[in-house]
Amino acid sequence: MEPGDRQKRKPTGAAVLQLELTEAIVDIALDELAAKGFGRFSMEAVAKRAGVGKSALYRRWPSKSALAVSALSQLSVPLAETPDTGSLRGDLRAVLAAVLSWLDDPRFGRILPDMVAEALRNEELAEALTANLGDPRREKGQALIDRAVARRELPEDVDRELMLDLLAAPIFWRLTVRRLPVAQDFLDSLVDMLIRALGAHEETPRQ
Amino acid sequence: MEPGDRQKRKPTGAAVLQLELTEAIVDIALDELAAKGFGRFSMEAVAKRAGVGKSALYRRWPSKSALAVSALSQLSVPLAETPDTGSLRGDLRAVLAAVLSWLDDPRFGRILPDMVAEALRNEELAEALTANLGDPRREKGQALIDRAVARRELPEDVDRELMLDLLAAPIFWRLTVRRLPVAQDFLDSLVDMLIRALGAHEETPRQ
Repeated sequence: MEPGDRQKRKPTGAAVLQLELTEAIVDIALDELAAKGFGRFSMEAVAKRAGVGKSALYRRWPSKSALAVSALSQLSVPLAETPDTGSLRGDLRAVLAAVLSWLDDPRFGRILPDMVAEALRNEELAEALTANLGDPRREKGQALIDRAVARRELPEDVDRELMLDLLAAPIFWRLTVRRLPVAQDFLDSLVDMLIRALGAHEETPRQ
Repeated sequence: MEPGDRQKRKPTGAAVLQLELTEAIVDIALDELAAKGFGRFSMEAVAKRAGVGKSALYRRWPSKSALAVSALSQLSVPLAETPDTGSLRGDLRAVLAAVLSWLDDPRFGRILPDMVAEALRNEELAEALTANLGDPRREKGQALIDRAVARRELPEDVDRELMLDLLAAPIFWRLTVRRLPVAQDFLDSLVDMLIRALGAHEETPRQ
């Protein structure tokens, strides 16, 4: 939609309205994905609920995989912030809390497991998930490790791959695979285990 | 099918044949689940491939969830053996290798993620998964912990819940969520981390 469209007879296409429509469609897509799962998710149903033609969707996203990943990444990446709390222990606790809010989000928590399952059969979806969700999140995790190495709390040769896995895996397993609540003291125990597992030298010992 | 059926005119229903048929149906169900996912899995398709009527399936399993869980548990529980190797380190290494063969099984590795996703929307399936897969596997994991406590390698108050989660979660995350290979040295690093995380006192120090 070009700005020039504003001068045409019907002013329904203003850029700001287009942006609002895109946001509305993304929101509807997240609802549909959460309720129905990726297999039963359809561009038709989203278009119908948004009150637009299917072409309005296909102009923005070439496929239902593309719409799903785009919607998911808007929900996911902002939740991946890892504030610098000044210590490895504080940073770990903050990132585990962030992972928990991410996976425990009522919509995201239902959608991610579907996408994981579908990605094992759909290479396009698999690559989009890695590029839009996995990689950006792990980059933020690397920053947490860099800070701990700079503080000499972690050795330079810490196993970064395994450490990043351990920031999400136990929470995902308990919350999503076992469908059990993750309480704050689970996160506390996990931080203790991670500090020991990584052989960390804490600069600021636990209060 | 009762033994008395053998005396009837058509001897096709002998108990041994029934058992073979059940096994054949389970095998077909696993193929179908792996190829199509739980959402597109149907009793009709399984019956058709098995060359039997749908009633032959419904006599054995009341629903597609029941057939799916029954098929999965036959594949899963035998893979959950945890041999007593004489040390916590040896036991951990053996159980991680067993978890890896379980999750890396070409059929199981595709089916489990689907069931996990579906279970978030289907309470009957969720309960069946816990009762038939989760609970039996965790019981075997408890035996591993009991042995380590008896050897005084682990304290009696070890966090059993979190420890059992850590035997599967990192492998599931890497293999299934990240779709990356899990090499033997990943398992070695994970054992090292677990030993440190648990604060274990190894009776037989590492060679």
